[in-house]
Amino acid sequence: MKKLTVDLNCDLGESFGAYKMGQDDEILDHITSANIACGFHAGDPAIMKKTVKSALKKGVTIGAHPGFPDLQGFGRRIIAVRPEEAYDLVVYQIGALAAFAKSEGRKLAHVKPHGALYNMASVDSLLAEAIAEAVYKVDPELVFFGLAGSEMIKAGERIGLKTASEVFADRSYQSDGTLTLRRSAEALITDHNKAVDQVIKMVKEEKVISQQGLAVHIKAETISIHGDGPHALDFAVRVKNALIAEGVEIKAIR
Amino acid sequence: MKKLTVDLNCDLGESFGAYKMGQDDEILDHITSANIACGFHAGDPAIMKKTVKSALKKGVTIGAHPGFPDLQGFGRRIIAVRPEEAYDLVVYQIGALAAFAKSEGRKLAHVKPHGALYNMASVDSLLAEAIAEAVYKVDPELVFFGLAGSEMIKAGERIGLKTASEVFADRSYQSDGTLTLRRSAEALITDHNKAVDQVIKMVKEEKVISQQGLAVHIKAETISIHGDGPHALDFAVRVKNALIAEGVEIKAIR
Amino acid sequence: MKKLTVDLNCDLGESFGAYKMGQDDEILDHITSANIACGFHAGDPAIMKKTVKSALKKGVTIGAHPGFPDLQGFGRRIIAVRPEEAYDLVVYQIGALAAFAKSEGRKLAHVKPHGALYNMASVDSLLAEAIAEAVYKVDPELVFFGLAGSEMIKAGERIGLKTASEVFADRSYQSDGTLTLRRSAEALITDHNKAVDQVIKMVKEEKVISQQGLAVHIKAETISIHGDGPHALDFAVRVKNALIAEGVEIKAIR
Amino acid sequence: MKKLTVDLNCDLGESFGAYKMGQDDEILDHITSANIACGFHAGDPAIMKKTVKSALKKGVTIGAHPGFPDLQGFGRRIIAVRPEEAYDLVVYQIGALAAFAKSEGRKLAHVKPHGALYNMASVDSLLAEAIAEAVYKVDPELVFFGLAGSEMIKAGERIGLKTASEVFADRSYQSDGTLTLRRSAEALITDHNKAVDQVIKMVKEEKVISQQGLAVHIKAETISIHGDGPHALDFAVRVKNALIAEGVEIKAIR
Repeated sequence: MKKLTVDLNCDLGESFGAYKMGQDDEILDHITSANIACGFHAGDPAIMKKTVKSALKKGVTIGAHPGFPDLQGFGRRIIAVRPEEAYDLVVYQIGALAAFAKSEGRKLAHVKPHGALYNMASVDSLLAEAIAEAVYKVDPELVFFGLAGSEMIKAGERIGLKTASEVFADRSYQSDGTLTLRRSAEALITDHNKAVDQVIKMVKEEKVISQQGLAVHIKAETISIHGDGPHALDFAVRVKNALIAEGVEIKAIR
Repeated sequence: MKKLTVDLNCDLGESFGAYKMGQDDEILDHITSANIACGFHAGDPAIMKKTVKSALKKGVTIGAHPGFPDLQGFGRRIIAVRPEEAYDLVVYQIGALAAFAKSEGRKLAHVKPHGALYNMASVDSLLAEAIAEAVYKVDPELVFFGLAGSEMIKAGERIGLKTASEVFADRSYQSDGTLTLRRSAEALITDHNKAVDQVIKMVKEEKVISQQGLAVHIKAETISIHGDGPHALDFAVRVKNALIAEGVEIKAIR
Repeated sequence: MKKLTVDLNCDLGESFGAYKMGQDDEILDHITSANIACGFHAGDPAIMKKTVKSALKKGVTIGAHPGFPDLQGFGRRIIAVRPEEAYDLVVYQIGALAAFAKSEGRKLAHVKPHGALYNMASVDSLLAEAIAEAVYKVDPELVFFGLAGSEMIKAGERIGLKTASEVFADRSYQSDGTLTLRRSAEALITDHNKAVDQVIKMVKEEKVISQQGLAVHIKAETISIHGDGPHALDFAVRVKNALIAEGVEIKAIR
Repeated sequence: MKKLTVDLNCDLGESFGAYKMGQDDEILDHITSANIACGFHAGDPAIMKKTVKSALKKGVTIGAHPGFPDLQGFGRRIIAVRPEEAYDLVVYQIGALAAFAKSEGRKLAHVKPHGALYNMASVDSLLAEAIAEAVYKVDPELVFFGLAGSEMIKAGERIGLKTASEVFADRSYQSDGTLTLRRSAEALITDHNKAVDQVIKMVKEEKVISQQGLAVHIKAETISIHGDGPHALDFAVRVKNALIAEGVEIKAIR
């Protein structure tokens, strides 16, 4: 029997100039894929270089985490870009980060859109396809990370990219497989035991129990880990250990 | 006897968003190397893509034109960066532009720093070396364009890069081979005949008559062509035709 | 009988650094209110100072033209800000421009939101109210320019601001008084005679013939004049002269 | 005998978007003047509004803290601006902050340039005068904070502004009254007792013992307090208490 595997990914390199964010050094000990900010919604050239080096040193796979050009809004505000504009800003940001990888003799392994760009592309097939095309055109070997079951995954497959379906430990799901909206009181799973159980079920059974109580099919190839907040690190370690205890191997995609 | 050759380079892709600058389409018919702005002092992802495509379509060799992050100052204001900061911003910008080349199935051929970064690196060996190292680390095949006789050329050679010594048709030179400072009344050669004569002499004899009347050795591998201003295009054509009439072949470096 | 009056307003100061936009000097001879960009979607401190001085010198009333922090998109892209964020960015921009007025011994007379912020606030009462409140809090004497019949005008009145209902000469209207959407082929009135007739009717009869052929009530206190494009200046002069010929006085609000 | 008084000032509002910096709420309990960042080197419209409100609520006098447009460098990198460019960016930033004061029914009391702009203007009389003129033109009642004995203080006096001579508790001085350069090992006074003694001497005797052992005249009207770093708050409290114990009254200028 083939051993089950899953990737743990986390957004890194989100500091900017004199501003510090996240616990990058600590979290790097517990993840397999680092999504590195590319200077638009967070990160700057110096931070990008440092983060690429730290991740490579710890054997963590590196990828680009492109977002909207909105540092003040941290890339979380919707900006109504046309698909072509999204294509352009994704090509640009992947390239900028790839150069830091290349200057260290390495390559990027994946791309995961950030914040509002991720959310918008999850439901907008044209936007998702423009982003997927940007990824493919820069390097067809890149793995495209997107919300499990979303337009991003579909677009990546259409374009010919290897995709990685992302799931969340601490977010609840609806019966149609989408995430419960953030404005809902039940969006976040604050009980860590429940969150860990959800992750185990998603990885081992490819199922999640929706908020409505239904067992919904879900593909869990990579798990989103948070790097910020007081309990982020503890929770990351718990998720990792629980998966290992269940016999799941933690490793990067490909 | 080996035929004399020289490259004609011009800064392109300097528009930004709704703001138009330069006569890129026209000038592309007359140059062999395009230095494309990378979004810091000018240019944006959409402009970069468009400029890369236009240049490639017309058979013009493309290169990165990294500058300071100062759109308002058009990269012309000195920013006192440490060499390591210069390294970071050059890696970033080359990468961003290289991705647009790659998305078109092509590669960048050269790098030429812009504005204040160019001027500062011409006389600051540590800064020049940091920039040259950035270029080398991203791609050792890139040709490093710098002011003839400057610290940039020396740094590029130390690092192991192929370099291209740049000369100016319409700027006067001092007896030590440096450009006459802009604040001097004699900095610019406004007489087009004299400017054309100077270029021919530099390319054919590797000499320039300094403002003090001395014949100074100068290496002229690439000539800086301006793309903006009412007479820029006319002058570019004159320089090109005069060189061809003298039997000089106009072609990109390598 | 009280003489009919109308204001002619135009967006000015939209250059940025080395980038030129518009024909500010020429258009200032034909308008009564200048909406001056404040450095977010266009303009920079140097341009703002210059534009304030030019307008005051020609006796044109000056006002702030705040927009989204999106120079690349020229403030035309929707950014999904919360009303409080809009409040903040409007306070900031009015203040920045007001300081240039104050440094010339003068005051701002009005505020007109720009681009996507204008369009969004036209139909979103909460956003409109946040902007109107920002204007009021900075200076309750400021006149609030907004699309005739829109949520902006209503919000301005609720807050206690003097408002100015803006109309467009070259845009067609729907029977509910709204502008025909830009994506419609009939959005723009390209026939200058028709556009002039529409303006005259709006000012003299407070009516506009909708695209559906109905005579709709509309309040026309200020007319939007374009400062860019090859025919902008000609058209501005035609509109002005036609109004004067009809006995309408062209003067700033208040 | 007139009671001795001194002002304690601190840079505040240096957070940006999702990025937090400083312990503004705590430090506000111990200072009399808040220098609030204006969105160029730090701060954003939301942070500015919040900081203005917090300071006013605690009875702390508010002032503008304009800096270079260099968020990544936190305004600490030299940018070679012409005096007129400095004038423009100071007018802009004072105005932006003043609008938040005005929207709360209050006025700014002072202006203190930030970082590299402060350092450059301390020794460059033309730059200092351009900044002082900007302050005066926006509001001649504003107090101009500058390094004691520097070109800023001289320029402020020439222009007709009330000035406040700033001293540092934890920086050593040279016999010509200037600060020991940062790159010197003796630049910082790390012994808190010595630093407190220096401040007391400066305020009570208008003297500082230079690194060369001479008693040098110095005017101490406002003391720079740091709001960041692990011991900043403790040290601020110690300085304040020591001054009070010596009978010095802590209060804002004017």
